[in-house]
Amino acid sequence: MDIAATALAIQSGDRRALARAITLVESARPDHRAQALELLAALPKEKQALRIGLSGTPGVGKSTFIEAFGLMLIAQGLRVAVLAVDPSSARSGGSILGDKTRMEQLARAPAAFIRPSPSNAQMGGVARRSREAVALCEAAGYDIVLIETVGVGQSETVVAQISDLFVLLLAPAGGDELQGVKRGIMEMADLILVNKADGDLAAAAQRTRADYAGALHLLRRRAQDPDGYPLAMAVSAYTGAGMPEAWAKMQALAAWRRENGHWDLARAAQAKHWFHEEIRQNLLASLMAEPLRGILDGLGDAVARGDLRPELAAARALAAMGRG
Amino acid sequence: MDIAATALAIQSGDRRALARAITLVESARPDHRAQALELLAALPKEKQALRIGLSGTPGVGKSTFIEAFGLMLIAQGLRVAVLAVDPSSARSGGSILGDKTRMEQLARAPAAFIRPSPSNAQMGGVARRSREAVALCEAAGYDIVLIETVGVGQSETVVAQISDLFVLLLAPAGGDELQGVKRGIMEMADLILVNKADGDLAAAAQRTRADYAGALHLLRRRAQDPDGYPLAMAVSAYTGAGMPEAWAKMQALAAWRRENGHWDLARAAQAKHWFHEEIRQNLLASLMAEPLRGILDGLGDAVARGDLRPELAAARALAAMGRG
Repeated sequence: MDIAATALAIQSGDRRALARAITLVESARPDHRAQALELLAALPKEKQALRIGLSGTPGVGKSTFIEAFGLMLIAQGLRVAVLAVDPSSARSGGSILGDKTRMEQLARAPAAFIRPSPSNAQMGGVARRSREAVALCEAAGYDIVLIETVGVGQSETVVAQISDLFVLLLAPAGGDELQGVKRGIMEMADLILVNKADGDLAAAAQRTRADYAGALHLLRRRAQDPDGYPLAMAVSAYTGAGMPEAWAKMQALAAWRRENGHWDLARAAQAKHWFHEEIRQNLLASLMAEPLRGILDGLGDAVARGDLRPELAAARALAAMGRG
Repeated sequence: MDIAATALAIQSGDRRALARAITLVESARPDHRAQALELLAALPKEKQALRIGLSGTPGVGKSTFIEAFGLMLIAQGLRVAVLAVDPSSARSGGSILGDKTRMEQLARAPAAFIRPSPSNAQMGGVARRSREAVALCEAAGYDIVLIETVGVGQSETVVAQISDLFVLLLAPAGGDELQGVKRGIMEMADLILVNKADGDLAAAAQRTRADYAGALHLLRRRAQDPDGYPLAMAVSAYTGAGMPEAWAKMQALAAWRRENGHWDLARAAQAKHWFHEEIRQNLLASLMAEPLRGILDGLGDAVARGDLRPELAAARALAAMGRG
C-alpha cells in the first residue's frame, strides 16, 4: 500500500481508499500493523466527528433506525459513517452481507459510508480495530460516525470508550425479544430510545419509556450530565416520529459538553486510556507466550479448582517469568 | 512473626493474632509481603464464610445498620467479621477511631470482629489487602464477613469481586445526603435496602423502595439471579423493622446459588480474576519503573493533549522498553 497516496485519497473523500484502510487496521499481521501505524501517523488528528455509540439487541429495529437516522442527517447536509463493531459471527444470523441489505437506501447514498461487520475477525482485537476505524472515518471528514453493536461480550464498554455520546435502543416491553436490559448498560446511556412507538406497540412504547425514565431519574448526575440528561424518549424509526427530537437532544448534549469543557476532557481521557491499554495488551501478550502460557494456564486452573490461593499462584507465575 | 504459631492462633479464634495478620497483609513492604504469602499458604483454604459486600454513602446510616445486622446475626449464634475497605482518609471525617465508636455494642461482642479502615493506606493496593483480609477472616472461622465501603473510586467494583452477595444501602430520597446512586452501582446489587423506614421518613422510604424496585425490574436476569432477585426492600436499622426479612432474603439467595452451582462458579471466577490481576499488577509495576516512568508520563501527556495518537505513542513506549 502506498501510504502517502492512501492518506491523501482518504482525506479527499475516496470511499474505496477508506474501505481499504479499514481492512488494513482489522488485520493483526505484524506487517499490516506497521503499515496501519504509518497510515494513522500520516492523517491529520484535528478533524473530529460526532461519534455516537449505539447499542441494540436483535429485534429492536436497529437497522431500520440507523437507516432512518442516517437519511435524516444526510438530508441536513451531513456526511455519515456507520461502523459495526461485532464480528459477523457474533451477530444474529451471522450474515456476511450484513447490514447493507437492511439499509439499502442509506447504503446507496453518496454521503453515507457503511462498513459491515468484519467476517473473519475474532472478538479479541475488537477494541483496537474499532477505535482505529473510527479514527480513519474522522480523518476522512465524516461529520457523524455511528458505532453500533448488538451488545455481545464487552462490546458496549468498548463502544462507550470510543464514543462521545452513548445511545441505547430498546423495543417496547412485552414483545418477542430478550426481556430487559443487560446489567451495566442502562447506566452507560446518555439517551435511551424506545423504538417501534407506532401502531399496536405505541402505548407499550410509551409505558416502557416512562419505566426507563424513572430508572434514569435515580442515577446521580455526573459532571458531564447537564440538566435533563440522561433521558428516555419514544421514537418510531418506521414512521419517523420522535426522530428529529432525538437528534436535537443529541446535538444539544454534544454542544453543552463542548461548551463546558467535558468534550475535550473526555476525548483526552479516552486517548490516554487507549494509550495505556495498547501498552498493557502488547506487554502481556509478549510476556505470556509459550512455554509460559502452559504454566499460567495450569496455575489458573489450580486456582479455579480451589487447590491454590490466587496470590500464591501469582507468586509462582512471576517466579517462572524470572520476576517477583 | 512466627508464621506457624500465628496460623494456629488465627484458626483457634485468637482475635489479636487475626488483627496482627491483617496489619501484615496491609503492608506493602517486600519482607512483609513474603511473610503474608507464607501465612496465607499455612491457612486452610476450605473454610468459607458468607461474604456480604455492603456499599452505602455517608448519611445512609451504615454504622447503625451494621451494628443492628451484626447483633442480629450474633443472636443467632453466628460469628461476624466486619471489614472496612476504604482508607480512613477517604471516609467522611477521616476518623482514625473509625467505626468502632459508632458500633460500640457490636465492637464489644465476643463473637464479632470489627476492623477499622487502615489509616496509613493509599487507595491503591486496596484490592489486595481487602481480599487477603477477607481470606484471613474466613480461615479464622467467621461465618459472615461483612465488607463495607462508602463507595469512593472503584471500591464497589473491588468489593463485588470479593463478595458472594452485594448489598446497596440507601436513604429515602429527599434527605440531605447525595442524591441518587452512582452509575454502575445499582446494577451490581443483589439487594437494595432503603434504610430509615421509620418515623418521618417512613413514607418516603417506601416510595424510594418502589422506585428502585421498578428500576431493578428492567434489568435482564442473569444466570445467577433466581426468581425475585435482585430486589429492593425498606428497613429500619433503628427500629429493626425489615431486618430479619432482609437477612432471610440474603440467606435464600446464598442457598440458591450454592444449590445451583453458581456459588462455586463465582468463587472460581473470582479466584482466577485475582490470580491474573496480581500478575498484571506486578508485571506492570516492575516494567514501568524509572526512568521509563518519565518517558511514559511524557507520552501520556502528549496523547491527552491530542499531539500524538494513542497507538503511535504506545508503539514508542514499547520501543523504549525494548519491545514491539
